[in-house]
Amino acid sequence: MRTGIATVCLSGTLKEKMQACAIAGFDGIEIFEQDLVTSTLSPEDVRKMAADLGLGLDLYQPFRDFDGVTPDLLKANLRRAEAKFGLMSRLGMDTILVCSNVATATIDDDGLRASQLAQLAELAGDHGIKVAYEALAWGKYVNDYEHAYRLVEMVDHPNLGTCLDSFHILSRDWDTAPIEDINADKIFFVQVADAPKLTMDVLSWSRHYRVFPGEGQFELAKFMGHVVRAGYTGPVSLEVFNDVFRQSDVERTAVDAMRSLIWLEEQSAKWLAAAAEAEGGGSAAIRRRYPMELATLPKVNEPAGFNFAEVKADDTAQLEKLLGQLGFAFEGRHRTKDVQLWTMGQARVIINEQAASHAEPAIAALGFDVDSPVIASARAQQLKAPVVARKVQADEEVFQGISAPDSTEIFLCQGSPDGTAAWTAEFGQAGELGEGLERSSSGAGAVIDHVNLAQPWQHFDEAVLFYTSALALEPQPFAEVPSPSGLVRSQVMQTTDGAVRLVLNLAPAQQAQSEVRKTYQEHIAFAVDNLVATARAARERGLEFLQIPANYYEDLDARFDLEPGFLATLQELNLLYDRDASGEFLHFYTATVGSVFFEMVERRGNYDGYGAPNAPVRHAVQYDHRQHASLQRH
Amino acid sequence: MRTGIATVCLSGTLKEKMQACAIAGFDGIEIFEQDLVTSTLSPEDVRKMAADLGLGLDLYQPFRDFDGVTPDLLKANLRRAEAKFGLMSRLGMDTILVCSNVATATIDDDGLRASQLAQLAELAGDHGIKVAYEALAWGKYVNDYEHAYRLVEMVDHPNLGTCLDSFHILSRDWDTAPIEDINADKIFFVQVADAPKLTMDVLSWSRHYRVFPGEGQFELAKFMGHVVRAGYTGPVSLEVFNDVFRQSDVERTAVDAMRSLIWLEEQSAKWLAAAAEAEGGGSAAIRRRYPMELATLPKVNEPAGFNFAEVKADDTAQLEKLLGQLGFAFEGRHRTKDVQLWTMGQARVIINEQAASHAEPAIAALGFDVDSPVIASARAQQLKAPVVARKVQADEEVFQGISAPDSTEIFLCQGSPDGTAAWTAEFGQAGELGEGLERSSSGAGAVIDHVNLAQPWQHFDEAVLFYTSALALEPQPFAEVPSPSGLVRSQVMQTTDGAVRLVLNLAPAQQAQSEVRKTYQEHIAFAVDNLVATARAARERGLEFLQIPANYYEDLDARFDLEPGFLATLQELNLLYDRDASGEFLHFYTATVGSVFFEMVERRGNYDGYGAPNAPVRHAVQYDHRQHASLQRH
Repeated sequence: MRTGIATVCLSGTLKEKMQACAIAGFDGIEIFEQDLVTSTLSPEDVRKMAADLGLGLDLYQPFRDFDGVTPDLLKANLRRAEAKFGLMSRLGMDTILVCSNVATATIDDDGLRASQLAQLAELAGDHGIKVAYEALAWGKYVNDYEHAYRLVEMVDHPNLGTCLDSFHILSRDWDTAPIEDINADKIFFVQVADAPKLTMDVLSWSRHYRVFPGEGQFELAKFMGHVVRAGYTGPVSLEVFNDVFRQSDVERTAVDAMRSLIWLEEQSAKWLAAAAEAEGGGSAAIRRRYPMELATLPKVNEPAGFNFAEVKADDTAQLEKLLGQLGFAFEGRHRTKDVQLWTMGQARVIINEQAASHAEPAIAALGFDVDSPVIASARAQQLKAPVVARKVQADEEVFQGISAPDSTEIFLCQGSPDGTAAWTAEFGQAGELGEGLERSSSGAGAVIDHVNLAQPWQHFDEAVLFYTSALALEPQPFAEVPSPSGLVRSQVMQTTDGAVRLVLNLAPAQQAQSEVRKTYQEHIAFAVDNLVATARAARERGLEFLQIPANYYEDLDARFDLEPGFLATLQELNLLYDRDASGEFLHFYTATVGSVFFEMVERRGNYDGYGAPNAPVRHAVQYDHRQHASLQRH
Repeated sequence: MRTGIATVCLSGTLKEKMQACAIAGFDGIEIFEQDLVTSTLSPEDVRKMAADLGLGLDLYQPFRDFDGVTPDLLKANLRRAEAKFGLMSRLGMDTILVCSNVATATIDDDGLRASQLAQLAELAGDHGIKVAYEALAWGKYVNDYEHAYRLVEMVDHPNLGTCLDSFHILSRDWDTAPIEDINADKIFFVQVADAPKLTMDVLSWSRHYRVFPGEGQFELAKFMGHVVRAGYTGPVSLEVFNDVFRQSDVERTAVDAMRSLIWLEEQSAKWLAAAAEAEGGGSAAIRRRYPMELATLPKVNEPAGFNFAEVKADDTAQLEKLLGQLGFAFEGRHRTKDVQLWTMGQARVIINEQAASHAEPAIAALGFDVDSPVIASARAQQLKAPVVARKVQADEEVFQGISAPDSTEIFLCQGSPDGTAAWTAEFGQAGELGEGLERSSSGAGAVIDHVNLAQPWQHFDEAVLFYTSALALEPQPFAEVPSPSGLVRSQVMQTTDGAVRLVLNLAPAQQAQSEVRKTYQEHIAFAVDNLVATARAARERGLEFLQIPANYYEDLDARFDLEPGFLATLQELNLLYDRDASGEFLHFYTATVGSVFFEMVERRGNYDGYGAPNAPVRHAVQYDHRQHASLQRH
């Protein structure tokens, strides 16, 4: 698959954009007219730079408001087109995108449109240029790709074809199957963009909210499947107008963009295989049938569970105290590194003492159980995930590590069916437990339930694609949680069986404003079988619980009509409660140290959520603590 | 008019919100349930604090999903309601908002709804509580205020009335005139919110994009006029869900909110007077007729023009050089302050040398010609604009100053019909012009055309209301300008005759992220009669123009088919060009010093814009300069 990207997706100057596209490995680019007009590079400079960078200049775009106009306007439009054709010759480009008219068309007549497009095609032919005519979703008269193609057929000129753009097709819910009926020679270009499903005017949706494939909710693999089955072999190019991407770091966005096409290529091949299966064809037949080559990636299944979570600090005393009070056992220190292992049932927490001086406690890494760490790592690297290297001795387990968009380190570990981890043998004899601490018997069934990570606003969509493509997690519908300092956007990524649950939180801009990572609090949640017993034991060990206001319990009672003894227990132990049709959820939070805190949960029945109605209470109390701490500092 | 605000409008804890509301001068508040549930304050604490702060607790809200349900659910809902009525008694509150059911209603039957609401009203009566039933715009069966009122009439219970919310009514385009047919005794509460006109699902629109009155596009004065004519005298309370407000400084947002109600009160009185006029009534009759008292503000007309613009720097040499090269004349220094006066025609620029050490050049203040500075200042102060004090000697003109939301100082000056300013006499004899500089003859007709100010993202909406209410400028439809570092939102505020034009720019988040003000560039534009002559003279004086890329002129030619000699002149002088149906626009920019640059424009015919198609070129070239400067620094 030939990969491409429109320069309008990226921030910076044309030169910076081109360099970033080359670094990310794109085959070609679309030059967005404004990027050239505002550039200090001459067309000849751009042509040479593209050649030096190994980038094809695949599409000049957009040429707007051409068709369905009065004779006077047609004359001006042809003059304008000829100027652009001359410019394209200097750039060495041969394809231009012409969008269906949104502004100046006054005549709704296919015959007239075809005759005007024919004149354009004839003029283009004189310059060796191909015109790709595209139906914009909000085109005044032409807004349906089949209509655009009918016009192309009517004109029947070698220099006129069509451009298919997934946004303009899927935003209008047009059926994509008829794409297969288009003559592949007449598909001059294919643009892809994903988007969240929003109910708003399609122009605003298109101009601000497009995202890269895999970051939205469009059925892009199906769209691409039909394109491939039509016989198309040209560029598949991203055209994504997004307010965040166009102000983010250009090289990083280009890599995110490239990852989305690599992933889309794989998904398209899967869709084709599934479609062929459904139609009774064998998989051998598939490759013969479609001329576009689709590369494959190393295959991975969903991770089977969390292998470990790692927290890091300069001074780890508070973390050790919290874990001990929660009922975790200290299993000893690593034989060569300054890290400690703490466990409760199958929940493993590594305390890393190698943080920078004065670094506050924070979540540093997560380990996931996968079938094959090497295959999973190969896949992640093909998806352009940055590799994390860790020093190991010869006889120690080598962890395959990649860096997530928020710079959390992700380790791909060898899972074992019984939930144990071989690397724990690298840790020495358990040291002494702290004073008053003892191994908890109630924690035998404990596991890591979920981990909640704060995402910088520039990298939220990137993170969704990262975990989807590299780790095979599935994004759930997102939620918005009110907090005293703004709405927190909360995106759950999880496996089908819920064994791995990651919650990506986008903090309000005020909190996200700091350049420093981790201004927003993150946490690790552990699931136990009996939360009340766990909480009682923790209280006896002196754990500092997050204090839940009395008003909360009154409201809880008004909402759920709880048995009075149970309600009293909840309030006594600062437990939070939720209930839905599938089950119940009990949980509590610890105080925060640095930017990290812990949660203990108990899931009853098939409860699959995270106590969302309680999140505002947690945010409010934590906000209150921060305000007090800040007052005391000043 | 009794003023109120819902706590959900503001950031922070309930305590912080209440304090901010008291400081801003609200009569009462609505307590949003979640703010109480998450609060560590007991209901009794809240009651006492409100009494101490002089705040009425006017509405408890919201009670959701009550009506149109099955018998089982009704029982649970009545139990839940009784718990809330008990809570309200402890708070000393007597009115609760009940929204029409959006989630759990299964029966669409007005008879059933009325019977269930009657049971609620009866229970409320037992607790001395009044129920205000409101139609949500997205209510499952009840989404129209007239429908809600019909139910209230059917029930006919002293403890059941209705709540009118401008958002739920205006977002659905319901006719507001029938509000006057509602029995005023049955209007238990009125909520107001403004909003930009967006085409999107009404729930998202409501939850994220509401703004305070005067910051959006709803016809709120008309809505309020009908409410007043219905005979309503209760609270007029803001309920504004806005992503920005709920993360901004609470005290500042509360003041912005209060300003919006003061302004709305005046606009409502105006609407009533105009309506009475139209209906043939005299203005004397109006006050007798409606029981709600509407306070009035000191009246101002639109400003007649800019009186001056002031730039400030530690080292002013670069500013002096730029102005001199543009053709400004140095008119001397102030006799008691370290400021210089530079003029060109009627365009006056003050260079203030009193900036903090190492402060880069920036726009510091703007003077506007008003009919009466004292009246304008009184109005601004009643609208809670912060006052700016300037030291003056006994015989000097006293400037009335207020601080705009972005902290630019706004001075209200005595305009004179001939465009001169008396205070210029406070400046001494003109000093020597710099070497090679001489007074320009081409600048006789020069004026300040417009000023472009960068707004912090937290205060953009506040700024629109500030200039609308305090300075009588009119907001124009906003535009979005692409730049290499993101989209720039651009909001023009101007007088009807265009004599005062202010452009408020909201820079992309990346640029706005810095805590430091003025990271984004701002500028002052001067209009002259002959731009080509001005540019030539400036070039001879050695002015550093913003260099416009050659590609721009090629595109200009393709778009406008310009006369070759004219095009060559534009390119030779780095002039930009635009044309529309009403006229033509020529302009050029200077290099940037600190965060400020200058623009020279010539308006031909009735051209009323700002060369918007050229703004991306300006942004791109300035970005390029910043990147180079940054590379050189590192």
